Amino acid sequence: MSGKQTMNHPAANLPDLAPLIDQLQSILGERVSTSSSILEQHGHGESWHPVQAPDAVCFPQSNEEVAAIVRLCAETATPVIAFGTGTSLEGQVQAVKGGICIDLSQMNQVLEVGNEDLDCRVQAGVTRRQLNQYLRDTGLFFPIDPGADTSIGGMAATRASGTNAVRYGTMRENVLGLTVITASGEIIKTGTRARKSAAGYDLTRLFVGSEGTLGVITEVSLRLYGLAEAISAAIVNFPDVRSAAEATIQTIQMGIPMARIEIVDSAYMKAINAYSKTDYPELDTLFLEFHGTHAGVAEQVQMFNEISQDFGATGFQWAEQEEDRRQLWRARHDAYYAGLAVHPGYRGYVTDICVPISRLADCIAETQADIADSGLFAPIIGHVGDGNFHSTMFIDPENEAMLEKALELDHRMVQRALDMGGTCTGEHGIGLGKLKHMRHEHGDGAVEVMKAIKAAMDPQNIMNPGKVVDC
Amino acid sequence: MSGKQTMNHPAANLPDLAPLIDQLQSILGERVSTSSSILEQHGHGESWHPVQAPDAVCFPQSNEEVAAIVRLCAETATPVIAFGTGTSLEGQVQAVKGGICIDLSQMNQVLEVGNEDLDCRVQAGVTRRQLNQYLRDTGLFFPIDPGADTSIGGMAATRASGTNAVRYGTMRENVLGLTVITASGEIIKTGTRARKSAAGYDLTRLFVGSEGTLGVITEVSLRLYGLAEAISAAIVNFPDVRSAAEATIQTIQMGIPMARIEIVDSAYMKAINAYSKTDYPELDTLFLEFHGTHAGVAEQVQMFNEISQDFGATGFQWAEQEEDRRQLWRARHDAYYAGLAVHPGYRGYVTDICVPISRLADCIAETQADIADSGLFAPIIGHVGDGNFHSTMFIDPENEAMLEKALELDHRMVQRALDMGGTCTGEHGIGLGKLKHMRHEHGDGAVEVMKAIKAAMDPQNIMNPGKVVDC
Repeated sequence: MSGKQTMNHPAANLPDLAPLIDQLQSILGERVSTSSSILEQHGHGESWHPVQAPDAVCFPQSNEEVAAIVRLCAETATPVIAFGTGTSLEGQVQAVKGGICIDLSQMNQVLEVGNEDLDCRVQAGVTRRQLNQYLRDTGLFFPIDPGADTSIGGMAATRASGTNAVRYGTMRENVLGLTVITASGEIIKTGTRARKSAAGYDLTRLFVGSEGTLGVITEVSLRLYGLAEAISAAIVNFPDVRSAAEATIQTIQMGIPMARIEIVDSAYMKAINAYSKTDYPELDTLFLEFHGTHAGVAEQVQMFNEISQDFGATGFQWAEQEEDRRQLWRARHDAYYAGLAVHPGYRGYVTDICVPISRLADCIAETQADIADSGLFAPIIGHVGDGNFHSTMFIDPENEAMLEKALELDHRMVQRALDMGGTCTGEHGIGLGKLKHMRHEHGDGAVEVMKAIKAAMDPQNIMNPGKVVDC
Repeated sequence: MSGKQTMNHPAANLPDLAPLIDQLQSILGERVSTSSSILEQHGHGESWHPVQAPDAVCFPQSNEEVAAIVRLCAETATPVIAFGTGTSLEGQVQAVKGGICIDLSQMNQVLEVGNEDLDCRVQAGVTRRQLNQYLRDTGLFFPIDPGADTSIGGMAATRASGTNAVRYGTMRENVLGLTVITASGEIIKTGTRARKSAAGYDLTRLFVGSEGTLGVITEVSLRLYGLAEAISAAIVNFPDVRSAAEATIQTIQMGIPMARIEIVDSAYMKAINAYSKTDYPELDTLFLEFHGTHAGVAEQVQMFNEISQDFGATGFQWAEQEEDRRQLWRARHDAYYAGLAVHPGYRGYVTDICVPISRLADCIAETQADIADSGLFAPIIGHVGDGNFHSTMFIDPENEAMLEKALELDHRMVQRALDMGGTCTGEHGIGLGKLKHMRHEHGDGAVEVMKAIKAAMDPQNIMNPGKVVDC
C-alpha cells in the first residue's frame, strides 16, 4: 500500500502519551512498537482512505493483556483501535484521533473444536484460512469467506460475509458467542454453546458489526458445518447482467439451496483472464456452487439449468474435482487484484450495496448504465444470491477529479439501494466511508438509540472513536 | 386461569394515576379500560406466577397512538407493559410496579406480503395462525410455532421458537426489521428489506428478546418460506428417552435437514392419548417432519431410518396427507393441556433448558432420574434437534410444598444445563422466573453491560420494569 498519503491526526487533545507507552512496555516489553513503518502499516486497511496512524501498536497474547492495555488507556482517555489483518474497506482501523492500536495477530490459537457440536472457539487473530487448514481432517469447515484471508475477530467486528452467505449466512448467524474486553477493561463473555437461547439481551449480535466501537473482541465461538457429500461448481454465461440477475432471482425464489451464486461482469472476466492466465469467455457470468448429497446436487443442477435456459444461459463449464473448483474460485477471489493490475498504480474503491432480491436486476442494470455514463473503470462483482453486489471503481490516487467522480457514483448507488429498501453496506461495514449514510438509512431516531448505547458502553468514547455512530 | 392468586403491586411509589388515565381516555376514548376483570386478565401469562395487575389497559390501533401513550407515561414516569396474547410463561406481563398495559390485539393487520422477496410486514398483534391463514393461497408460510397462538410482537419480544426452529431458526433469525416505540415515545424503525447488512449496530437483534424492557414493538418484518414440495411426518418409538436423544444427536450431527424432531416421553404420550382420544403407543417417542423435494424427503427418511434402527426404534407411523399431519401435530401441541387434564385444578410450571447437542442425552437422562426422585408429575417434551427440552411440572396451586419442590427441581435443571455449556431458557425468556439465573449464566460483567444498555435506552426505567435485567 505504498504511495498512500499519510494524514496525521489533528492535534487530538491527547495528553503526552509517553508515560502511557512506558506503562504498556512495562507489561508487554518489546511487544509495543512505535516504529514509523509499523505505525503506518496499522493506519489503514485496503481501501482508498488516507492513512491515519496510531501512536503505538501493542501485540498482546492473552485476554488479560488486552484488558490491561484497555485499562491503562481508559485511565488517560486514550483511543483504542483493534486491528486484525488490516483488510477492511471503509477506513475501520484509521486512528482518526491517534491512540493505541491493539494488533491481535499474536492471539492466533484455535482453542477448541467441538466435533460433536459442530462448533469451535478461536482467538480473534486466527484467520479464516488458518481455521479451515486446522479443520482439514475433521470433515468440518467454516464457510464465511470475505475475499482476503481475514482474521475471525475482524470478520465478527465488521459482520462480514462473502460467497457462501447465501447458503450458510453471515457472521451474524455464525457467531455463537464472544469474549470481549469492554471500554473499562473488563473481560466479559457473551452467548453459550447452546444453539438458541432467550436469556436476556443479545450482546453477541450487538458486538458483531460494532467495528471495535463497543469493545475489543478477543475470542470468537463459531458454528461449523459438515463438508457436503457432493460439491459441484460451474460458470455459465449470460447475454447481459440483467439476465444473469433475473436467473438469480428466480433461483432464490424457487428455494434452490445454492451454496454460492456470484455475478462477475464481462469487464471483470476480461481482467481475470489477463491476471489469472485463464481463458474464460469474457461475458457476463455467474459462478455457481452446489452442495448436498449426490442426488440432491443433481436435482439442484437440473432445476438451475431449467431456469437459466429461460434467461439465455450458454457455455456451462463444470468443475467437479477439488483442484478444479479451487482454481475456479481462486480466479473469482483474485478479481480485485486482477482489476488493480489493469491500471498499475490505481487504487480500488469498492462499493457494497445490497437490495431485496426482487429489485436486484433493476439495481444492477441501472448501476451498470450509471457506471458507463461516469466513464470510470468500475467492473461489477457480487453475491447476487443475497442481493449484494460491488462495483469496484479503480482510480488514480493522484487524480482528485476521478476520486470526486467515484464518490458521486458511490453516493448514487447507495441512494438507489436505499430507495429500493436496501442497505448502504451488505458486508463491508460503516467505518469512516459510510458514516454519511447512517441517518438516511436508519433515520435519526434509530441513530440516536445507537449513540445512546455507545455512550453507555464507552462513556469516554475511547473505543475506535470516529466510526460507525459518529454521525 | 381462574383460581390464581392476585398480588397487588407494592404501594409502588406511583403518583395518583387518575389524571394520566383521563389523558389516555382523551386520546383513546373507550379503548382504555380500568375494569377489574380486564386488569386481572392482563396481569398474568399462562404460568404459575401470581397475577400482578396493571392500573389501566389501553387498546391502541396505530404506531402514533402507542407513541402518545408512552409519551404520557414518560411524563409521569409511569410503567408501560406491552401485552400480546398473554401466553408468556415466565411472568413477562406481570405489572410488578403497576402502570399502564398496552394491549396490541387491535393492531392486527398484515401490512404487506412480498411474494417475490419471501417476506412480510405485520402489526405486532397479528397472531401466527392468523398470518399463516392469510398466506394460505401464496405458497408461502411462516414457520415459527410456539405452542399457543401467540402474537408476532410477543414472539419477537421473547425470542420465541418452537418445533420448526431446528430447520428454520428462531425469531432471532427470522425477524428482518421492527418498528419500535422507544421509552421517550419516539417511533423508530430497525433493519431494511435486504437480507443482510453491515450498517451499524444490530438494533433488530437487540430488541428481539428484550421482552418490552427497551421499547414496545409495534410492527415486525419477517422472513417467509416457500411450502416444501413434499412433506412427510411420522412418530417413532424408542426404548427410553436416552435412546431417542442419542438418535437425535446423530441425526443432527449427520446434517439431515430435519424440519421437526421432537421428543415426547411416555408419560406425556399417555396424557395425550387420554386428552386427544388417540391411541399412540405409550412409549418414549420422537415426532418427526421432513421437508424437501420428493427425492430429498425420501433420502432424508432413509438416512433417519438407518440411524434410528441403531437405537432400537420401533413402530414408525407415517402421516403423509395434510389432515393426518395436522392431527399428529395437534396432538403434540395439545400436550400441555393434556397434562393439565391429568390432575384437574393443577397448574403447569414449564422448564426450558437448552444444551449443546452432544450433551442432550446425558441431560435428558439425568433430568428424568431427578424427576423420578422428586415424586412430581413432570413429563418431558421438547425440541431436541436444538438441544432444547421442557419438563412440565404439574402442581397443586394450594400446595406450597409442591411448588417449593418444583422450584428446586427447576433450579437443578438450570444448574445442569449451565454446567453443560447451555442456557437457562431456550425459548421462553427471562421475565420474572429466570431473573435469578442471569448472573450465573452470563457473569456479572455481561449483566452490567445489559443494565447499562437498559439505563441508556430507558433512563426512567418505565419499560416493563422488574424484568430481564433487574437482577
